[in-house]
Amino acid sequence: MNKLLIVGTVAFDAIETPFAKTDKILGGAATYIGLSASYFNLQSAIVSVVGDDFPQEYLDLLTARNIDISGIEVVKGGKTFFWSGRYHNDLNSRDTLDTQLNVLADFQPKVPQNFKNADVVMLGNLHPLVQSSVLDQMETQPKLVVLDTMNFWMDCALPELLDVIKRVDVITINDEEARQLSGEYSLVKAAAKIHAMGPKYVVIKKGEHGALLFHNKEVFFAPALPLEEVFDPTGAGDTFAGGFAGFITQSENISFENMKNAIIQGSNLASFCVEKFGTERMIDLDKEEVLSRLKQFKSLTQFDIEL
Amino acid sequence: MNKLLIVGTVAFDAIETPFAKTDKILGGAATYIGLSASYFNLQSAIVSVVGDDFPQEYLDLLTARNIDISGIEVVKGGKTFFWSGRYHNDLNSRDTLDTQLNVLADFQPKVPQNFKNADVVMLGNLHPLVQSSVLDQMETQPKLVVLDTMNFWMDCALPELLDVIKRVDVITINDEEARQLSGEYSLVKAAAKIHAMGPKYVVIKKGEHGALLFHNKEVFFAPALPLEEVFDPTGAGDTFAGGFAGFITQSENISFENMKNAIIQGSNLASFCVEKFGTERMIDLDKEEVLSRLKQFKSLTQFDIEL
Repeated sequence: MNKLLIVGTVAFDAIETPFAKTDKILGGAATYIGLSASYFNLQSAIVSVVGDDFPQEYLDLLTARNIDISGIEVVKGGKTFFWSGRYHNDLNSRDTLDTQLNVLADFQPKVPQNFKNADVVMLGNLHPLVQSSVLDQMETQPKLVVLDTMNFWMDCALPELLDVIKRVDVITINDEEARQLSGEYSLVKAAAKIHAMGPKYVVIKKGEHGALLFHNKEVFFAPALPLEEVFDPTGAGDTFAGGFAGFITQSENISFENMKNAIIQGSNLASFCVEKFGTERMIDLDKEEVLSRLKQFKSLTQFDIEL
Repeated sequence: MNKLLIVGTVAFDAIETPFAKTDKILGGAATYIGLSASYFNLQSAIVSVVGDDFPQEYLDLLTARNIDISGIEVVKGGKTFFWSGRYHNDLNSRDTLDTQLNVLADFQPKVPQNFKNADVVMLGNLHPLVQSSVLDQMETQPKLVVLDTMNFWMDCALPELLDVIKRVDVITINDEEARQLSGEYSLVKAAAKIHAMGPKYVVIKKGEHGALLFHNKEVFFAPALPLEEVFDPTGAGDTFAGGFAGFITQSENISFENMKNAIIQGSNLASFCVEKFGTERMIDLDKEEVLSRLKQFKSLTQFDIEL
């Protein structure tokens, strides 16, 4: 089985939507990426850090999905990273109510020895120096390195972010962030500028409006599945990235054509994520429902004009 | 050849975008619909009204695209409908600066005798009573009636709008209008409610975010082609509707599967419309460029996951 190494936050989230609110629940980029990737045939490990306030049952939940958690450091007396946010009525935008870095402030990632030869590395949203440090620890060149990031690092660690962007094959980023990073409003132009920063593949996430994959002059688009109700968008972008990276890891095929499939797989898994609070929907999807929704993606997008 | 009957405005537009502005130029829903549909193999006629300030060269331009203009009434001493608007920086929203109904205020549409048996009727955005009157004049039941409308009529002529909506097969409407008409935020729920008002097919236009086609429990999605530069979005929705109706007229196939193709054809033609001011790009597209862009739509959306 191929290996996928994931770095990112494992965290507590408190979420308010127009429909309901939660206390502290399981969250974090690496959590969503790991859960999503776990629906493919692969070996995965998460590199992250939590405090000893982090419940064993959350760690067990990752282990139950066959995720190697030996790279999740538990800091004695430390407190786990905490994020709290409130979504606006349209669920497309949100306000951050609180961010407590806690143990994340001094995090030094340690890649487990048996993942230093991982086939695919998924660098979830975190300080770019942490992302770079993970790449430094690899003993063999991964077949594919995927990076996710956000505007926060563009604002406060741009040189370090540009350094790690140079080293990756795929970047996933949302539309506003792509505009900020490139200084271009047109996403086509933005993708071209980001290409020039290093990544051969640029994935621009547009939330409910789908995702674009750019490679040289080629473009592929995957819509989000139109849903009756979106309950909580938290983690959808990470779930998308996890599905993308997971499928590539399983299939061992990093062609543009196969990345199209990976984008669809990521969109498919993200469509489940938003149906319930936090990770709730992602902990025990069944194979049949995943497959059945993939079929919906086909009928949603495939047509038959003869050219 | 099959017949397509088009009703809608033929007008003067004055447009400001972040890039440039125009004096009065050729505009109007029926103009864009007619030009777009003219790229298919069909006979078409426009029913509309203009004043005698309307330049002969604009009428000639329609005739040159094989559009029957005998249903365009020219009112002596009358002034042509005028609309003026300014786009915001993102080109996704605009302010109306001026609207002068002029000859449109008392418009009584007259369907040319040889189009009273049209195969397809495209009711472009106009007062719903005008749209109804066109349907009343048909001597044979059209194979398909498509209606486009806007929020303005929901605000000031809702009962008349609901009456005509009952009589059509397909409604095309933008996302905000679908929400207003249905009272539902979710587009899936909005489409279901609009279904219940009469139309078997509901097309929701999302501008640069593509278009959705709903039919019972089925959904199809067509993205907008990602463009380096959008110059002027005026008429894109009408061009989309014209491409949709034109393709259906040509193909004589009103199955859901073929409507998917029609949605793609409409999106394809709309992608040209926005590249220049007003109708400029739509008056002489060549077959090769239309075909080549259809191929781009295929590679943009088609994937090959085996299920």
